[in-house]
This record gives sequence, structure tokens and C-alpha cells, in this order.
Amino acid sequence: MDLSRAFFALDLAGVAVFAASGAIVAGRKRMDVFGVLVLATATALGGGTLRDLVLDVTPVSWVAQPVYLATAAAAAVVTMATRRIWSLLARPYVVADAIGLACFCVLGAERAASAGAGETVTVVMGVVTAVAGGMIRDVLAGEVPLVLRRELHATAALAGALTYRLAHGLGVPSPLGAVLGMGVALGLRLAALRFGLSLPVFEGHDRPSPRPPG
Amino acid sequence: MDLSRAFFALDLAGVAVFAASGAIVAGRKRMDVFGVLVLATATALGGGTLRDLVLDVTPVSWVAQPVYLATAAAAAVVTMATRRIWSLLARPYVVADAIGLACFCVLGAERAASAGAGETVTVVMGVVTAVAGGMIRDVLAGEVPLVLRRELHATAALAGALTYRLAHGLGVPSPLGAVLGMGVALGLRLAALRFGLSLPVFEGHDRPSPRPPG
Amino acid sequence: MDLSRAFFALDLAGVAVFAASGAIVAGRKRMDVFGVLVLATATALGGGTLRDLVLDVTPVSWVAQPVYLATAAAAAVVTMATRRIWSLLARPYVVADAIGLACFCVLGAERAASAGAGETVTVVMGVVTAVAGGMIRDVLAGEVPLVLRRELHATAALAGALTYRLAHGLGVPSPLGAVLGMGVALGLRLAALRFGLSLPVFEGHDRPSPRPPG
Repeated sequence: MDLSRAFFALDLAGVAVFAASGAIVAGRKRMDVFGVLVLATATALGGGTLRDLVLDVTPVSWVAQPVYLATAAAAAVVTMATRRIWSLLARPYVVADAIGLACFCVLGAERAASAGAGETVTVVMGVVTAVAGGMIRDVLAGEVPLVLRRELHATAALAGALTYRLAHGLGVPSPLGAVLGMGVALGLRLAALRFGLSLPVFEGHDRPSPRPPG
Repeated sequence: MDLSRAFFALDLAGVAVFAASGAIVAGRKRMDVFGVLVLATATALGGGTLRDLVLDVTPVSWVAQPVYLATAAAAAVVTMATRRIWSLLARPYVVADAIGLACFCVLGAERAASAGAGETVTVVMGVVTAVAGGMIRDVLAGEVPLVLRRELHATAALAGALTYRLAHGLGVPSPLGAVLGMGVALGLRLAALRFGLSLPVFEGHDRPSPRPPG
Repeated sequence: MDLSRAFFALDLAGVAVFAASGAIVAGRKRMDVFGVLVLATATALGGGTLRDLVLDVTPVSWVAQPVYLATAAAAAVVTMATRRIWSLLARPYVVADAIGLACFCVLGAERAASAGAGETVTVVMGVVTAVAGGMIRDVLAGEVPLVLRRELHATAALAGALTYRLAHGLGVPSPLGAVLGMGVALGLRLAALRFGLSLPVFEGHDRPSPRPPG
């Protein structure tokens, strides 16, 4: 399998996992089955759409290749059909989000590098691609975005994108670099969830208030 | 009236009705009059902006033709001026949203087809155009997006876009196809609101919680 | 210093101030330090990204020049490091937002005019650039967007963009027009906050309800 096909497969894997995370959130909100498809698809394709628009890559991936839409829809349907299985997991939505984060931080960096972006933008695009879809999902569902929480969410995406980029700079073959980047991102995120790891908190006030005066 | 002008008129009608829905929501939030204009315009033009960006249609409709902005602003002003009339309706915001949904699901599909998109993307663009503006409106206003509710919101947009596309495939003249698509979307949505029709709900948990643990 | 460099400096100033406003909001939400960077950067670059996408200016400003990213990140770090100072202010987040609003309403109008937009779109782009970043910040943080409040938020952006455009039309030199536009926007916004100025409210209902029936 050549390299571009490997990254294409990785992209579809990320789409499927993010779609599953969107479907789980939609299910909690008691959306109807087509509403589930809409939220799952927005979650799965939102990050890549923003990435392609900002990088001026045209046409946008899912417009060029409807297999993206089919993958997102199929993943949402499978998620609905198998909810008895994954609902046994402690945090199915957060775990699905973590896997998607790992796929997309590497893929976003790879797409930015392919589009000729510099090193900084390459890493930033990894983070944007990894976190934007989940932000859309959480905002539409009225949830506090995962990225706002303290368990190394955006930080894991940064670490993964940075690892991928550094490996590339050191001459590591792309597939190995991708695996390393994904491993760092997923490992960091799951470890943070499991062991409550977190970066220091920046506290602007002595105590947070849900609705500050200004 | 030639075909492109008919669709242009349909686009402006959708803009006006979505602007009205945005103005009604803004009024409930006690925004000032210019804030009402901003929310109305974002609602009216948000879906079409996203559609044009994703389809790489440049310039974006309202940049090319300021009449879009003027229509949205005028509709918002008229909505403010006539609030005593429509406030007699049971659900003015939901009804305005339903009419806009019907206009934009057909129009989004038509614009995608004109831009050379395949069948799947054509139908999806109808749904995106129809639901995105309302999502922006509801999220900015801090409301639960209508699309999350169960009365066939996104489903009606899908049915309308699909009807329009199928009619086109069967050789039905475009204006008739557009009327059919709009009728299906609007009828389905209003019937769902009136009679409480809904698709099955996908329940991810036994009972929904406002703020799940993960 | 030639004109384009002056506007570039103004852009970076707006980016820095909006990044500070995002960092303050993020601090209140007890995000970790990298999460603070993400929210600060999204706030600082969101408005300009939307502006460049809609105007079809490619590449997007921060993709072309990573100094935008560096400025946003540096401003966020400085904000974190100096929180003891600005936390003495009554409303640091609203004041930072007001300064950013003043910078970006002029800059958005200038960029639109440079891209060949007509007068209406020029003024609208000033408003879009000025308010979009803050909307993203507030929505992601689960706050009621400032633009929804009644103290002349979007109105101040409109007044600033309009002043800049009118000054240009009257032959006033660009730097002076920019200062005038910024002064009008900032003065109006701060005066509104200080003295409780507001435009009339459009009341759609006798009393607002947090969750209307439809």
C-alpha cells in the first residue's frame, strides 16, 4: 500500500471514530436517528473541512470523495446498532474522541505539510484538525467542550503533531512517524484520563463563577 | 422569468425568512436593535456562506451581491416593526425556520449541482445549507439547536433535497422539482410539529442527563 | 513606516488584545495552560480567518505569516504571567474585547476594501472581523456572547467601520481615518459600559424566558 493510500485510510479511520463519538453524544440528547447522522457527520468532517478551507485545498475532502460521507454515516449507524456493547465502557464518548484526536493530529499535520505549509502552521493544523470537530460536536450538543477540560486534550494533539513533525525532520519514514505521533497523542490523553494528569491551571480568579459579571 | 432569476428569488426569500427567525430569537434575548440585525444576518447568510466556501464558489453570494445583506436587514426590521402581528402565532420562530428550511434545502442542492457536485454531495449540501444558519442562530443565542429536537428538522431538509434531486433525475422541470422539494420539506416539518411526528430516538443511555460524566 | 506596515502592526495589536481576552476567559474556566493558548488563539485569529475565507484572500493571514500565531501565543502567556496586575481592573475581559473590537472593525474594513469589496461589504466585513472572534471565544467557553448584550457591542463595531469608510470617502488620509474609526468604536463601547448607554431593545415577548416553548 503506497503512502497516500495509507494516510487516506488513516483519515477514514479518524472520520469513523469521530462520527461514533458524535453519535454517542447525540444519543444522550435523545436526537432522532437522522439527527444522530447529522451530528455524527458534522463531528467527523468539521475538523477536516476547516483544515481544507484554511489551507485552500480544493475541493474539500468530502466534496471530492463521497466515501468520507459514507464512512461517517456508516460509523454512526454501527454505533447506534451496537450501543449495548460500547455502553459497557466507562466513557465511550471520551475514548472515541481520544482515538480520533490521535488520528487527526497526525493527519492534519501531514495535509498541511503536503500543502506546503511551514513548520509552525503544520503543527498548528494538526491541533486544529484534531480539536475542531469535537468542538463543533460539543457546542451543538450544549456540552462543555472536551478541549476546555484539564485532562491534556489539546495538549495531546499538540504532542502528537509535534512528534510527527519532528520525526519527519529527523528523517524517520512517514508511516513510522505517523504511528509514533498517534501513539504519543493517544497515550498521553488516555494516561491523563486514567491517572488524572494535567498541566497547571491558569486561574484568573480565586474561584470560577458560571456567569462572571464582565 | 428565467430559471436562474427564479432561484435567485428563492434564495432571497429564504434569506428573508431566516432573518425573521433570527430577529425573533434575538428579541427574546432582549438584544438591542443593531444586535438583532447582527443575529438575523448571521442566521440568514450563515448557511449559504458555508455552502459557498465548501463548494469553492467565489465570491460568496452576499459579497458578490449586497442585495442579500439588504434583504436580511430589511426582513429583520420588518420583523421588529410587526412583532405585534406575528407574536399572535403560536410558534413564530419555529414556523419561520421551517419555511427557510424548505427554501434552502432546495436551493443548496441546486447550487451544489450547478457547481458540478455529485449526487450525494448535492443532497448533503441541501441539508447543510438548510440547517447551518439555524444552528448558528441557536448556538449564539444560547438555545438548544432546533436540529437537536425530534420533530423531523434535519430529516425534512433531507427529504426536500432528495425530492428535488430525484425529480431532476426523472426529468421533471427544475421549477416544478423545486416546488415539490419545498412542499415535501415544509409539509413534513409542519406536520411533525403539529402532530408530534418523529423518527425513532436513539437512546445511548437509559435516561439523558444534562451533563454526563464523560 | 509605510501604510501596509502600519495596518499590519494594527492587525497584530488586535490579535494580541483579543488573545488576552481569550486567555482571561479561559482562566476563569480553569483550563490548563495549553488550553488557554488554544482558546486565546481561536479568539485572536477567528475573526480574521472568517474574513479572509469569505473574501477569498489566500493564503489566510496566519498561514502566510506565522508571526500571527506567535503574537497570539505570546499575548496569552503574558496575560497568564501578569494576571495579578490586570485582575485589579474591574472588567479586564470586556475592556480587552473593546480594544480588540476597535482595532478589528477598522482593519476588517481596510482588508475588504483592499480586496475590492464594495462599500456595504466593506463596512459589514469590519463588523464581522470585530465580532466573530469574540463570538467563538464566548460560545466555546459556554458564556453568553458579549454581542448579545445591550451595551453597544456590534453597534460600536459598525460605527467604527462606518467612520473609517466615510473618512476614506471624504479623502481623509488612511492613518487618520483609522485612528478616527478606532476612537469612535472604542469611545462608544467604553462609554456604553461606563454609563449604561444602550440602543432600544426589541422585545419579542413581554418577558424573556430562558427556554421558550418554540
